[in-house]
Amino acid sequence: MPAALIEVRRAYTVDEEVAIMDAVHAALVEAFRIPPEDRDVRLIAHAPHRFACSPELARPELRTLVTIDCFAGRSAEAKRALYAAVVDRLEPLGIPRDHVTTIVHDIPRESWGLMGGIAASDHDLGFDVEI
Amino acid sequence: MPAALIEVRRAYTVDEEVAIMDAVHAALVEAFRIPPEDRDVRLIAHAPHRFACSPELARPELRTLVTIDCFAGRSAEAKRALYAAVVDRLEPLGIPRDHVTTIVHDIPRESWGLMGGIAASDHDLGFDVEI
Amino acid sequence: MPAALIEVRRAYTVDEEVAIMDAVHAALVEAFRIPPEDRDVRLIAHAPHRFACSPELARPELRTLVTIDCFAGRSAEAKRALYAAVVDRLEPLGIPRDHVTTIVHDIPRESWGLMGGIAASDHDLGFDVEI
Repeated sequence: MPAALIEVRRAYTVDEEVAIMDAVHAALVEAFRIPPEDRDVRLIAHAPHRFACSPELARPELRTLVTIDCFAGRSAEAKRALYAAVVDRLEPLGIPRDHVTTIVHDIPRESWGLMGGIAASDHDLGFDVEI
Repeated sequence: MPAALIEVRRAYTVDEEVAIMDAVHAALVEAFRIPPEDRDVRLIAHAPHRFACSPELARPELRTLVTIDCFAGRSAEAKRALYAAVVDRLEPLGIPRDHVTTIVHDIPRESWGLMGGIAASDHDLGFDVEI
Repeated sequence: MPAALIEVRRAYTVDEEVAIMDAVHAALVEAFRIPPEDRDVRLIAHAPHRFACSPELARPELRTLVTIDCFAGRSAEAKRALYAAVVDRLEPLGIPRDHVTTIVHDIPRESWGLMGGIAASDHDLGFDVEI
């Protein structure tokens, strides 16, 4: 059930945007072992001047910020695997590894209202969070 | 003082967007008992391809994600009431209950700078958070 | 490495938007003592009806919401300094002090994948977070 937001600062084609979103989703499936159909990925393409980034980046137009809201409980190891999987999967799309930041928001289950309006803490998720 | 963000993936009319925002605000007033004038609700309408969602949704164009930053302290019961109120109030607008997710970010008061630049932990809020 | 998001509800010129973003970044450098080159600031300008705010605001078009993801560890004192610095620096740009809210998301270092895909908890940051 993670909800991922990807922010970029250049214009991509629709196909490129979909590929970036698929890459982040695949990283979540791989590292957090979520069901593949549990997809919630949004992309915002900022005008370049509306996404200020470090002057030290070699290709600032490729700066990419990934923010993921997910259930708390994943181990540091699972998170390390996620960060690596995100950069591994974005690199073939032309996004340099050192231009990507991934931020995880660890949300307690009682703070997550599942589809239907039920708290996640009152529901059998059908998959493991403590990985 | 909660700050709510609603993300949708289809084009609504202005009136429909306002109705969706009013519904989420009313849910906050009801479940979290905030003052009605404490309104901070934003809506982002993503292009459909920029908001990927589960292939299992009956009407994917109606997928709706609500993210709420609010002071920590609400009970699990208050949160349950919020999730139910959000889906109860969006359903009459045509959004199926099982197409809505609500995520709460519980923010410690010292991490919230109120209007005026004062930390919320240094201020009498005028309402109860521990409900 | 804080990642700041500024949300506004009126149209500004590009120069005005850049000045607002520079102001928030300068507040972070001042109050959180981050390196000046550690810049990650985005701005979203909502259509007015998509950013509902309190009817009590004198100039609702100037309502400004700042959300900052940063490493956990800053003291309450550093956060107070941040809230004050944000309003101090936005006021000369015409944004009233009591129209600004700043929300801090304190992110554990293991939940932050640095550029390159390395967890921040595995890396020497080169600056202090516990200030």
